[in-house]
Amino acid sequence: MTAIIIDGKARGLALRTTVAAGVAEFAAAHGRAPGLSVVLVGQDPASAVYVRMKGVATREAGMVSAEHILPAETSEPELLALIAALNADPTVDGILVQLPLPRHIDTDRVLAAVDPAKDVDGFHPINVGKLSAGLDALVPCTPAGCLLLILEALGDISGKEALVIGRSNIVGKPMAALLLAKSATVTIAHSRTRDLAAHVARAEIVVAAVGVAGLVKGEWIRPGACVIDVGTNRVTGADGKARLVGDIEFEPARARAGWITPVPGGVGPMTIAGLLANTLQAAKARVS
Amino acid sequence: MTAIIIDGKARGLALRTTVAAGVAEFAAAHGRAPGLSVVLVGQDPASAVYVRMKGVATREAGMVSAEHILPAETSEPELLALIAALNADPTVDGILVQLPLPRHIDTDRVLAAVDPAKDVDGFHPINVGKLSAGLDALVPCTPAGCLLLILEALGDISGKEALVIGRSNIVGKPMAALLLAKSATVTIAHSRTRDLAAHVARAEIVVAAVGVAGLVKGEWIRPGACVIDVGTNRVTGADGKARLVGDIEFEPARARAGWITPVPGGVGPMTIAGLLANTLQAAKARVS
Repeated sequence: MTAIIIDGKARGLALRTTVAAGVAEFAAAHGRAPGLSVVLVGQDPASAVYVRMKGVATREAGMVSAEHILPAETSEPELLALIAALNADPTVDGILVQLPLPRHIDTDRVLAAVDPAKDVDGFHPINVGKLSAGLDALVPCTPAGCLLLILEALGDISGKEALVIGRSNIVGKPMAALLLAKSATVTIAHSRTRDLAAHVARAEIVVAAVGVAGLVKGEWIRPGACVIDVGTNRVTGADGKARLVGDIEFEPARARAGWITPVPGGVGPMTIAGLLANTLQAAKARVS
Repeated sequence: MTAIIIDGKARGLALRTTVAAGVAEFAAAHGRAPGLSVVLVGQDPASAVYVRMKGVATREAGMVSAEHILPAETSEPELLALIAALNADPTVDGILVQLPLPRHIDTDRVLAAVDPAKDVDGFHPINVGKLSAGLDALVPCTPAGCLLLILEALGDISGKEALVIGRSNIVGKPMAALLLAKSATVTIAHSRTRDLAAHVARAEIVVAAVGVAGLVKGEWIRPGACVIDVGTNRVTGADGKARLVGDIEFEPARARAGWITPVPGGVGPMTIAGLLANTLQAAKARVS
Protein backbone atom coordinates (compact mmCIF):
# COMPACT_ATOMS: atom_id res chain seq x y z
CA MET A 1 0.00 0.00 0.00
CA THR A 2 1.18 3.52 -0.69
CA ALA A 3 -0.61 6.28 1.14
CA ILE A 4 -2.69 8.97 -0.47
CA ILE A 5 -0.76 12.18 0.17
CA ILE A 6 -3.11 14.72 1.68
CA ASP A 7 -2.77 18.01 -0.15
CA GLY A 8 -3.08 20.53 2.67
CA LYS A 9 -2.23 23.36 0.36
CA ALA A 10 -5.17 22.61 -1.92
CA ARG A 11 -7.45 21.92 1.02
CA GLY A 12 -6.38 25.11 2.77
CA LEU A 13 -6.96 27.10 -0.40
CA ALA A 14 -10.44 25.62 -0.74
CA LEU A 15 -11.22 26.59 2.86
CA ARG A 16 -9.90 30.11 2.26
CA THR A 17 -12.13 30.41 -0.81
CA THR A 18 -15.14 29.37 1.23
CA VAL A 19 -14.21 31.89 3.92
CA ALA A 20 -13.77 34.65 1.34
CA ALA A 21 -17.29 34.00 0.07
CA GLY A 22 -18.57 34.20 3.65
CA VAL A 23 -16.66 37.43 4.18
CA ALA A 24 -18.27 38.99 1.11
CA GLU A 25 -21.70 37.99 2.41
CA PHE A 26 -20.90 39.39 5.84
CA ALA A 27 -19.67 42.68 4.39
CA ALA A 28 -22.79 43.02 2.24
CA ALA A 29 -25.04 42.38 5.23
CA HIS A 30 -23.24 44.50 7.81
CA GLY A 31 -21.53 47.25 5.83
CA ARG A 32 -18.06 46.30 6.98
CA ALA A 33 -15.64 43.41 6.57
CA PRO A 34 -14.59 41.29 9.55
CA GLY A 35 -11.44 42.58 11.20
CA LEU A 36 -8.48 40.66 12.58
CA SER A 37 -5.85 42.29 14.79
CA VAL A 38 -2.54 40.51 15.22
CA VAL A 39 -0.23 41.55 18.05
CA LEU A 40 3.49 40.82 17.87
CA VAL A 41 5.86 41.74 20.68
CA GLY A 42 9.54 41.72 19.73
CA GLN A 43 11.55 40.71 16.73
CA ASP A 44 11.51 36.92 16.63
CA PRO A 45 12.13 36.28 12.91
CA ALA A 46 9.88 33.23 12.63
CA SER A 47 7.07 35.08 14.42
CA ALA A 48 7.50 38.07 12.13
CA VAL A 49 7.14 35.79 9.09
CA TYR A 50 4.00 34.19 10.51
CA VAL A 51 2.45 37.57 11.29
CA ARG A 52 3.19 38.83 7.78
CA MET A 53 1.70 35.66 6.22
CA LYS A 54 -1.40 35.99 8.38
CA GLY A 55 -1.83 39.60 7.35
CA VAL A 56 -1.56 38.77 3.66
CA ALA A 57 -4.00 35.87 3.94
CA THR A 58 -6.46 37.96 5.93
CA ARG A 59 -6.52 40.70 3.31
CA GLU A 60 -6.75 38.15 0.49
CA ALA A 61 -9.88 36.79 2.14
CA GLY A 62 -11.38 40.27 2.04
CA MET A 63 -11.01 41.00 5.74
CA VAL A 64 -9.46 43.96 7.47
CA SER A 65 -6.06 43.12 8.92
CA ALA A 66 -4.24 45.19 11.49
CA GLU A 67 -0.77 44.25 12.69
CA HIS A 68 0.40 45.74 15.97
CA ILE A 69 4.16 45.33 16.14
CA LEU A 70 5.45 46.28 19.59
CA PRO A 71 9.06 46.53 20.73
CA ALA A 72 10.51 43.62 22.68
CA GLU A 73 10.73 45.74 25.83
CA THR A 74 6.98 46.44 25.88
CA SER A 75 5.73 46.01 29.43
CA GLU A 76 2.92 43.67 30.39
CA PRO A 77 0.62 46.58 31.39
CA GLU A 78 1.23 48.21 28.01
CA LEU A 79 0.37 44.99 26.22
CA LEU A 80 -2.74 44.49 28.39
CA ALA A 81 -3.80 48.06 27.63
CA LEU A 82 -3.56 47.38 23.89
CA ILE A 83 -5.62 44.20 24.30
CA ALA A 84 -8.23 46.10 26.31
CA ALA A 85 -8.47 48.66 23.50
CA LEU A 86 -8.86 45.91 20.89
CA ASN A 87 -11.47 44.20 23.06
CA ALA A 88 -13.43 47.45 23.13
CA ASP A 89 -13.06 48.23 19.42
CA PRO A 90 -16.29 47.17 17.68
CA THR A 91 -14.55 46.82 14.30
CA VAL A 92 -12.16 44.19 15.67
CA ASP A 93 -13.67 40.70 15.51
CA GLY A 94 -10.55 38.65 16.11
CA ILE A 95 -7.46 39.20 18.26
CA LEU A 96 -4.39 37.04 17.91
CA VAL A 97 -1.39 37.44 20.18
CA GLN A 98 1.58 35.87 18.42
CA LEU A 99 3.45 33.45 20.68
CA PRO A 100 5.99 33.14 22.16
CA LEU A 101 5.88 36.38 24.14
CA PRO A 102 9.05 37.79 25.72
CA ARG A 103 9.88 36.20 29.05
CA HIS A 104 9.05 39.23 31.16
CA ILE A 105 5.40 38.93 30.12
CA ASP A 106 3.00 36.41 31.73
CA THR A 107 1.58 34.59 28.70
CA ASP A 108 -1.32 33.03 30.61
CA ARG A 109 -2.42 36.42 31.91
CA VAL A 110 -2.28 37.95 28.44
CA LEU A 111 -4.21 35.12 26.80
CA ALA A 112 -6.86 35.31 29.52
CA ALA A 113 -7.22 39.07 28.89
CA VAL A 114 -8.44 38.60 25.32
CA ASP A 115 -12.22 38.86 25.01
CA PRO A 116 -13.24 35.18 24.61
CA ALA A 117 -15.61 36.22 21.81
CA LYS A 118 -12.61 37.58 19.86
CA ASP A 119 -10.21 34.80 20.82
CA VAL A 120 -9.60 33.40 17.31
CA ASP A 121 -6.69 31.28 18.54
CA GLY A 122 -9.00 29.47 20.96
CA PHE A 123 -6.46 29.78 23.77
CA HIS A 124 -8.61 31.59 26.38
CA PRO A 125 -9.41 29.20 29.25
CA ILE A 126 -13.13 29.66 28.65
CA ASN A 127 -12.80 28.51 25.04
CA VAL A 128 -10.59 25.63 26.15
CA GLY A 129 -13.24 24.64 28.68
CA LYS A 130 -16.09 24.95 26.21
CA LEU A 131 -14.26 22.75 23.72
CA SER A 132 -13.68 20.14 26.41
CA ALA A 133 -17.31 20.29 27.54
CA GLY A 134 -18.66 20.01 24.00
CA LEU A 135 -20.05 23.56 23.88
CA ASP A 136 -19.72 26.00 20.97
CA ALA A 137 -16.25 27.51 21.12
CA LEU A 138 -13.53 29.10 19.08
CA VAL A 139 -11.20 26.15 18.49
CA PRO A 140 -7.41 26.37 18.03
CA CYS A 141 -6.67 26.57 14.31
CA THR A 142 -4.11 23.79 13.89
CA PRO A 143 -6.02 20.93 15.49
CA ALA A 144 -9.22 22.16 13.84
CA GLY A 145 -7.44 21.95 10.50
CA CYS A 146 -6.13 18.47 11.31
CA LEU A 147 -9.63 17.30 12.16
CA LEU A 148 -10.93 18.54 8.80
CA LEU A 149 -8.24 16.56 7.00
CA ILE A 150 -8.95 13.44 9.04
CA LEU A 151 -12.69 13.61 8.47
CA GLU A 152 -12.21 14.13 4.75
CA ALA A 153 -9.96 11.07 4.60
CA LEU A 154 -11.93 8.73 6.84
CA GLY A 155 -15.48 10.03 7.07
CA ASP A 156 -17.06 8.89 10.34
CA ILE A 157 -14.32 8.23 12.91
CA SER A 158 -16.61 6.99 15.67
CA GLY A 159 -14.90 4.14 17.53
CA LYS A 160 -11.65 4.48 15.64
CA GLU A 161 -8.37 4.20 17.54
CA ALA A 162 -6.74 7.63 17.57
CA LEU A 163 -3.33 8.50 18.94
CA VAL A 164 -2.25 12.07 19.64
CA ILE A 165 1.48 12.42 20.25
CA GLY A 166 2.19 15.60 22.18
CA ARG A 167 0.21 17.29 24.91
CA SER A 168 0.65 21.00 24.25
CA ASN A 169 -2.21 23.38 24.92
CA ILE A 170 -1.93 24.58 21.32
CA VAL A 171 -2.18 21.28 19.47
CA GLY A 172 -2.14 18.04 21.46
CA LYS A 173 -4.81 18.66 24.08
CA PRO A 174 -7.35 20.40 21.81
CA MET A 175 -6.71 17.74 19.13
CA ALA A 176 -7.57 15.04 21.66
CA ALA A 177 -10.74 16.92 22.66
CA LEU A 178 -11.82 17.24 19.02
CA LEU A 179 -11.22 13.57 18.25
CA LEU A 180 -13.07 12.55 21.41
CA ALA A 181 -16.00 14.76 20.46
CA LYS A 182 -16.15 12.78 17.19
CA SER A 183 -16.30 9.59 19.29
CA ALA A 184 -12.86 8.23 18.51
CA THR A 185 -11.12 6.24 21.25
CA VAL A 186 -8.31 8.66 22.05
CA THR A 187 -4.88 8.05 23.52
CA ILE A 188 -2.58 10.95 24.39
CA ALA A 189 1.11 10.05 24.32
CA HIS A 190 4.01 12.35 25.16
CA SER A 191 7.65 12.44 26.19
CA ARG A 192 7.02 10.22 29.21
CA THR A 193 5.19 7.54 27.24
CA ARG A 194 7.08 4.27 27.43
CA ASP A 195 6.10 2.19 24.42
CA LEU A 196 5.27 4.71 21.75
CA ALA A 197 5.84 2.12 19.00
CA ALA A 198 3.06 -0.10 20.38
CA HIS A 199 0.65 2.83 20.59
CA VAL A 200 1.40 3.88 17.02
CA ALA A 201 1.03 0.27 15.85
CA ARG A 202 -2.59 0.06 17.00
CA ALA A 203 -3.65 3.55 15.90
CA GLU A 204 -5.93 4.08 12.92
CA ILE A 205 -5.39 7.83 13.28
CA VAL A 206 -2.02 9.28 14.30
CA VAL A 207 -1.48 12.98 14.94
CA ALA A 208 2.13 13.83 15.78
CA ALA A 209 2.80 17.24 17.31
CA VAL A 210 5.98 17.20 19.32
CA GLY A 211 8.65 18.88 17.20
CA VAL A 212 11.19 16.04 17.11
CA ALA A 213 12.31 15.19 13.59
CA GLY A 214 11.56 11.60 12.66
CA LEU A 215 10.40 10.60 16.16
CA VAL A 216 7.76 8.30 14.73
CA LYS A 217 9.32 5.49 12.73
CA GLY A 218 7.61 4.56 9.50
CA GLU A 219 7.68 0.87 10.35
CA TRP A 220 5.51 1.52 13.42
CA ILE A 221 2.58 2.76 11.36
CA ARG A 222 -0.47 0.54 11.23
CA PRO A 223 -1.21 -0.37 7.60
CA GLY A 224 -3.90 1.91 6.21
CA ALA A 225 -3.73 4.48 9.02
CA CYS A 226 -4.45 8.16 8.55
CA VAL A 227 -1.24 9.93 9.53
CA ILE A 228 -1.18 13.66 10.30
CA ASP A 229 2.17 15.31 10.90
CA VAL A 230 2.07 18.66 12.68
CA GLY A 231 5.81 18.72 13.28
CA THR A 232 7.86 21.30 11.41
CA ASN A 233 11.51 20.69 12.12
CA ARG A 234 14.43 22.33 10.32
CA VAL A 235 17.19 19.79 9.66
CA THR A 236 20.38 19.93 7.66
CA GLY A 237 20.65 17.23 5.02
CA ALA A 238 23.78 15.37 3.87
CA ASP A 239 24.14 18.02 1.18
CA GLY A 240 24.48 20.71 3.86
CA LYS A 241 21.16 22.27 2.90
CA ALA A 242 18.46 23.00 5.47
CA ARG A 243 15.03 21.57 4.88
CA LEU A 244 11.81 21.08 6.80
CA VAL A 245 10.76 17.66 8.01
CA GLY A 246 7.98 16.44 10.25
CA ASP A 247 7.86 14.30 13.38
CA ILE A 248 7.15 11.23 11.27
CA GLU A 249 9.58 9.46 8.94
CA PHE A 250 7.79 10.30 5.75
CA GLU A 251 8.84 7.76 3.13
CA PRO A 252 8.61 4.58 5.22
CA ALA A 253 5.38 5.83 6.80
CA ARG A 254 3.94 6.56 3.38
CA ALA A 255 4.65 3.00 2.35
CA ARG A 256 2.32 1.73 5.11
CA ALA A 257 -0.25 4.44 5.74
CA GLY A 258 -3.56 4.94 3.99
CA TRP A 259 -3.29 8.73 4.08
CA ILE A 260 -0.44 10.98 5.11
CA THR A 261 0.28 14.70 5.26
CA PRO A 262 3.58 15.93 3.85
CA VAL A 263 5.81 18.50 5.57
CA PRO A 264 5.67 21.16 4.30
CA GLY A 265 2.35 21.44 2.48
CA GLY A 266 0.23 19.35 4.84
CA VAL A 267 -1.07 20.78 8.09
CA GLY A 268 0.64 24.19 7.77
CA PRO A 269 -1.67 25.71 5.17
CA MET A 270 -4.69 24.55 7.18
CA THR A 271 -3.65 26.59 10.18
CA ILE A 272 -3.88 29.97 8.49
CA ALA A 273 -7.08 28.95 6.71
CA GLY A 274 -8.47 27.95 10.11
CA LEU A 275 -7.55 31.33 11.54
CA LEU A 276 -9.51 33.07 8.80
CA ALA A 277 -12.46 30.74 9.36
CA ASN A 278 -12.36 31.50 13.09
CA THR A 279 -12.29 35.24 12.44
CA LEU A 280 -15.36 35.00 10.22
CA GLN A 281 -17.06 32.79 12.83
CA ALA A 282 -16.28 35.31 15.56
CA ALA A 283 -17.56 38.20 13.44
CA LYS A 284 -20.81 36.39 12.71
CA ALA A 285 -21.31 35.48 16.37
CA ARG A 286 -20.67 39.07 17.43
CA VAL A 287 -23.37 40.54 15.17
CA SER A 288 -25.93 37.80 15.80
CA MET B 1 -2.36 -11.93 43.67
CA THR B 2 -5.21 -10.45 45.61
CA ALA B 3 -5.65 -6.71 45.43
CA ILE B 4 -5.33 -4.34 48.31
CA ILE B 5 -8.82 -2.97 48.86
CA ILE B 6 -8.63 0.81 48.95
CA ASP B 7 -10.56 2.10 51.95
CA GLY B 8 -12.17 5.24 50.56
CA LYS B 9 -14.16 5.71 53.72
CA ALA B 10 -11.04 5.94 55.88
CA ARG B 11 -9.23 8.03 53.27
CA GLY B 12 -12.21 10.36 52.93
CA LEU B 13 -12.42 10.72 56.68
CA ALA B 14 -8.73 11.57 56.87
CA LEU B 15 -9.19 14.23 54.20
CA ARG B 16 -12.19 15.64 56.04
CA THR B 17 -10.14 15.83 59.22
CA THR B 18 -7.42 17.74 57.39
CA VAL B 19 -10.03 20.08 55.94
CA ALA B 20 -11.60 20.64 59.36
CA ALA B 21 -8.21 21.69 60.73
CA GLY B 22 -7.83 24.10 57.81
CA VAL B 23 -11.30 25.44 58.45
CA ALA B 24 -10.46 26.15 62.09
CA GLU B 25 -7.33 28.01 61.00
CA PHE B 26 -9.29 29.97 58.43
CA ALA B 27 -11.97 30.91 60.94
CA ALA B 28 -9.36 32.04 63.47
CA ALA B 29 -7.62 34.17 60.87
CA HIS B 30 -10.67 35.71 59.22
CA GLY B 31 -13.33 35.78 61.89
CA ARG B 32 -15.75 33.62 59.98
CA ALA B 33 -15.96 30.02 58.75
CA PRO B 34 -15.99 29.24 55.03
CA GLY B 35 -19.52 29.01 53.65
CA LEU B 36 -20.97 26.55 51.15
CA SER B 37 -24.34 27.10 49.51
CA VAL B 38 -26.02 24.15 47.85
CA VAL B 39 -28.89 24.73 45.45
CA LEU B 40 -31.41 22.00 44.73
CA VAL B 41 -34.27 22.44 42.29
CA GLY B 42 -37.07 19.89 42.57
CA GLN B 43 -37.67 16.74 44.51
CA ASP B 44 -35.41 14.10 42.99
CA PRO B 45 -35.00 11.71 45.94
CA ALA B 46 -31.37 10.79 45.22
CA SER B 47 -30.45 14.47 44.84
CA ALA B 48 -32.21 15.31 48.09
CA VAL B 49 -30.16 12.63 49.86
CA TYR B 50 -26.91 13.97 48.38
CA VAL B 51 -27.75 17.53 49.38
CA ARG B 52 -28.55 16.47 52.91
CA MET B 53 -25.31 14.47 53.17
CA LYS B 54 -23.32 17.42 51.87
CA GLY B 55 -24.91 19.73 54.39
CA VAL B 56 -24.11 17.41 57.28
CA ALA B 57 -20.51 16.93 56.16
CA THR B 58 -20.05 20.66 55.63
CA ARG B 59 -21.20 21.48 59.14
CA GLU B 60 -19.13 18.62 60.58
CA ALA B 61 -16.06 20.21 59.01
CA GLY B 62 -16.88 23.45 60.81
CA MET B 63 -18.12 25.32 57.77
CA VAL B 64 -21.36 27.20 57.26
CA SER B 65 -23.81 25.27 55.12
CA ALA B 66 -26.83 26.76 53.43
CA GLU B 67 -29.24 24.62 51.47
CA HIS B 68 -31.52 26.37 49.02
CA ILE B 69 -34.31 23.97 48.12
CA LEU B 70 -36.40 25.37 45.29
CA PRO B 71 -39.63 23.96 43.84
CA ALA B 72 -39.36 21.94 40.62
CA GLU B 73 -41.25 24.61 38.71
CA THR B 74 -38.65 27.31 39.51
CA SER B 75 -37.94 29.26 36.34
CA GLU B 76 -34.47 29.67 34.91
CA PRO B 77 -34.46 33.44 35.60
CA GLU B 78 -35.41 32.77 39.23
CA LEU B 79 -32.57 30.28 39.56
CA LEU B 80 -30.12 32.65 37.88
CA ALA B 81 -31.22 35.42 40.25
CA LEU B 82 -30.45 33.21 43.25
CA ILE B 83 -27.03 32.39 41.83
CA ALA B 84 -26.34 36.07 41.25
CA ALA B 85 -27.22 36.77 44.86
CA LEU B 86 -24.92 33.98 46.08
CA ASN B 87 -22.15 35.25 43.80
CA ALA B 88 -22.49 38.66 45.41
CA ASP B 89 -22.69 37.39 49.00
CA PRO B 90 -19.24 37.79 50.58
CA THR B 91 -19.94 35.07 53.16
CA VAL B 92 -20.52 32.47 50.47
CA ASP B 93 -17.26 30.85 49.33
CA GLY B 94 -18.65 27.89 47.44
CA ILE B 95 -21.76 27.40 45.32
CA LEU B 96 -22.92 23.98 44.26
CA VAL B 97 -25.89 23.48 41.97
CA GLN B 98 -27.09 19.93 42.42
CA LEU B 99 -27.53 18.15 39.09
CA PRO B 100 -29.58 17.09 37.27
CA LEU B 101 -31.68 20.24 36.90
CA PRO B 102 -35.26 20.04 35.64
CA ARG B 103 -35.49 19.90 31.85
CA HIS B 104 -36.91 23.38 31.40
CA ILE B 105 -33.66 24.86 32.76
CA ASP B 106 -30.52 25.19 30.60
CA THR B 107 -27.87 23.47 32.72
CA ASP B 108 -24.93 24.88 30.77
CA ARG B 109 -26.20 28.43 31.24
CA VAL B 110 -26.69 27.91 34.97
CA LEU B 111 -23.25 26.36 35.50
CA ALA B 112 -21.64 29.21 33.55
CA ALA B 113 -23.46 31.74 35.77
CA VAL B 114 -21.68 30.60 38.93
CA ASP B 115 -18.75 32.82 39.88
CA PRO B 116 -15.73 30.71 38.80
CA ALA B 117 -14.03 31.60 42.10
CA LYS B 118 -16.95 29.96 43.97
CA ASP B 119 -17.40 27.05 41.58
CA VAL B 120 -16.55 24.24 44.01
CA ASP B 121 -17.83 21.62 41.57
CA GLY B 122 -15.28 22.75 38.97
CA PHE B 123 -17.92 22.69 36.23
CA HIS B 124 -17.62 26.30 35.02
CA PRO B 125 -16.02 26.35 31.54
CA ILE B 126 -13.22 28.57 32.81
CA ASN B 127 -12.28 26.04 35.49
CA VAL B 128 -12.54 23.23 32.94
CA GLY B 129 -10.22 25.17 30.64
CA LYS B 130 -7.76 25.97 33.40
CA LEU B 131 -7.59 22.32 34.41
CA SER B 132 -6.93 21.34 30.80
CA ALA B 133 -4.27 24.03 30.40
CA GLY B 134 -2.51 23.09 33.62
CA LEU B 135 -3.42 26.30 35.46
CA ASP B 136 -4.67 26.54 39.04
CA ALA B 137 -8.35 25.65 39.05
CA LEU B 138 -11.16 24.29 41.15
CA VAL B 139 -11.24 20.65 40.05
CA PRO B 140 -14.34 18.40 40.01
CA CYS B 141 -14.50 16.51 43.30
CA THR B 142 -14.90 12.93 42.13
CA PRO B 143 -11.92 12.74 39.75
CA ALA B 144 -9.82 14.74 42.21
CA GLY B 145 -10.64 12.13 44.85
CA CYS B 146 -9.81 9.30 42.44
CA LEU B 147 -6.45 10.89 41.69
CA LEU B 148 -5.62 11.06 45.40
CA LEU B 149 -6.37 7.34 45.77
CA ILE B 150 -4.29 6.48 42.70
CA LEU B 151 -1.30 8.52 43.84
CA GLU B 152 -1.44 7.00 47.30
CA ALA B 153 -1.43 3.52 45.80
CA LEU B 154 1.16 4.00 43.07
CA GLY B 155 3.23 7.05 43.95
CA ASP B 156 4.66 8.59 40.78
CA ILE B 157 2.46 7.65 37.80
CA SER B 158 4.61 9.30 35.15
CA GLY B 159 4.64 7.14 32.01
CA LYS B 160 2.08 4.70 33.36
CA GLU B 161 -0.65 3.41 31.06
CA ALA B 162 -3.96 4.85 32.28
CA LEU B 163 -7.40 4.06 30.93
CA VAL B 164 -10.44 6.21 31.68
CA ILE B 165 -13.71 4.55 30.74
CA GLY B 166 -16.42 7.15 30.27
CA ARG B 167 -16.20 10.66 28.87
CA SER B 168 -18.61 12.67 31.01
CA ASN B 169 -17.80 16.28 31.85
CA ILE B 170 -18.19 15.41 35.52
CA VAL B 171 -15.80 12.47 35.78
CA GLY B 172 -14.24 11.05 32.62
CA LYS B 173 -12.85 14.17 30.95
CA PRO B 174 -11.47 15.86 34.09
CA MET B 175 -10.06 12.49 35.23
CA ALA B 176 -8.17 12.21 31.94
CA ALA B 177 -6.87 15.78 32.32
CA LEU B 178 -5.65 15.07 35.86
CA LEU B 179 -3.88 11.85 34.89
CA LEU B 180 -2.29 13.57 31.91
CA ALA B 181 -1.08 16.40 34.14
CA LYS B 182 0.66 13.71 36.21
CA SER B 183 2.32 12.48 33.00
CA ALA B 184 0.46 9.21 32.59
CA THR B 185 -0.19 8.02 29.04
CA VAL B 186 -3.95 8.39 28.95
CA THR B 187 -6.57 6.62 26.87
CA ILE B 188 -10.21 7.66 27.00
CA ALA B 189 -12.64 4.88 26.14
CA HIS B 190 -16.43 5.14 25.96
CA SER B 191 -19.55 3.55 24.55
CA ARG B 192 -18.19 3.67 20.99
CA THR B 193 -14.88 2.04 21.86
CA ARG B 194 -14.55 -1.25 20.02
CA ASP B 195 -12.12 -3.41 21.94
CA LEU B 196 -12.52 -2.34 25.54
CA ALA B 197 -11.06 -5.64 26.79
CA ALA B 198 -7.75 -4.98 25.01
CA HIS B 199 -7.55 -1.46 26.44
CA VAL B 200 -8.23 -2.71 29.95
CA ALA B 201 -5.68 -5.49 29.52
CA ARG B 202 -2.81 -3.06 28.92
CA ALA B 203 -3.83 -0.47 31.55
CA GLU B 204 -1.87 -0.08 34.77
CA ILE B 205 -4.52 2.36 35.98
CA VAL B 206 -8.21 1.85 35.20
CA VAL B 207 -10.89 4.37 36.15
CA ALA B 208 -14.39 3.23 35.23
CA ALA B 209 -17.13 5.85 35.24
CA VAL B 210 -19.96 4.84 32.96
CA GLY B 211 -22.74 3.55 35.19
CA VAL B 212 -23.13 0.08 33.68
CA ALA B 213 -23.02 -2.68 36.29
CA GLY B 214 -20.19 -5.12 35.67
CA LEU B 215 -19.22 -3.63 32.29
CA VAL B 216 -15.56 -4.32 32.96
CA LYS B 217 -14.89 -8.03 33.32
CA GLY B 218 -12.50 -9.06 36.04
CA GLU B 219 -10.55 -11.29 33.66
CA TRP B 220 -9.62 -8.25 31.54
CA ILE B 221 -7.69 -6.59 34.35
CA ARG B 222 -3.93 -6.44 33.96
CA PRO B 223 -2.28 -8.18 36.90
CA GLY B 224 -1.24 -5.64 39.50
CA ALA B 225 -3.27 -2.76 38.07
CA CYS B 226 -4.76 0.02 40.18
CA VAL B 227 -8.51 -0.21 39.62
CA ILE B 228 -10.84 2.67 40.52
CA ASP B 229 -14.57 2.14 40.21
CA VAL B 230 -16.70 5.28 40.08
CA GLY B 231 -19.83 3.40 39.02
CA THR B 232 -22.67 3.20 41.51
CA ASN B 233 -25.36 0.95 40.09
CA ARG B 234 -28.37 -0.38 41.93
CA VAL B 235 -29.02 -4.01 41.04
CA THR B 236 -31.35 -6.65 42.41
CA GLY B 237 -29.60 -9.78 43.59
CA ALA B 238 -30.85 -13.39 43.34
CA ASP B 239 -32.29 -12.94 46.83
CA GLY B 240 -34.50 -10.13 45.53
CA LYS B 241 -32.62 -7.54 47.54
CA ALA B 242 -31.28 -4.35 45.98
CA ARG B 243 -27.60 -3.60 46.39
CA LEU B 244 -25.01 -1.21 44.94
CA VAL B 245 -22.37 -2.47 42.54
CA GLY B 246 -19.77 -0.72 40.43
CA ASP B 247 -18.91 -0.80 36.73
CA ILE B 248 -16.26 -3.43 37.39
CA GLU B 249 -16.85 -7.07 38.36
CA PHE B 250 -15.43 -6.79 41.82
CA GLU B 251 -14.42 -10.30 42.91
CA PRO B 252 -12.69 -11.47 39.71
CA ALA B 253 -11.04 -8.05 39.33
CA ARG B 254 -9.81 -8.18 42.89
CA ALA B 255 -8.16 -11.51 42.16
CA ARG B 256 -5.96 -9.85 39.50
CA ALA B 257 -5.57 -6.21 40.49
CA GLY B 258 -2.94 -4.70 42.74
CA TRP B 259 -5.36 -2.17 44.26
CA ILE B 260 -9.12 -1.86 43.88
CA THR B 261 -11.86 0.38 45.25
CA PRO B 262 -15.02 -1.29 46.54
CA VAL B 263 -18.56 -0.07 45.81
CA PRO B 264 -19.80 1.31 48.09
CA GLY B 265 -17.02 2.65 50.33
CA GLY B 266 -14.45 3.46 47.65
CA VAL B 267 -14.74 6.60 45.56
CA GLY B 268 -18.02 7.81 47.03
CA PRO B 269 -16.67 9.10 50.36
CA MET B 270 -13.86 10.89 48.51
CA THR B 271 -16.34 12.99 46.56
CA ILE B 272 -17.85 14.75 49.56
CA ALA B 273 -14.44 15.13 51.16
CA GLY B 274 -13.25 16.70 47.91
CA LEU B 275 -16.15 19.12 47.96
CA LEU B 276 -15.18 20.27 51.43
CA ALA B 277 -11.55 20.62 50.36
CA ASN B 278 -12.62 22.69 47.36
CA THR B 279 -14.75 24.96 49.52
CA LEU B 280 -11.84 25.61 51.85
CA GLN B 281 -9.55 26.19 48.83
CA ALA B 282 -12.06 28.66 47.36
CA ALA B 283 -12.38 30.48 50.68
CA LYS B 284 -8.63 30.81 51.02
CA ALA B 285 -8.23 32.05 47.45
CA ARG B 286 -11.00 34.61 47.96
CA VAL B 287 -9.35 36.21 50.99
CA SER B 288 -5.80 36.06 49.61
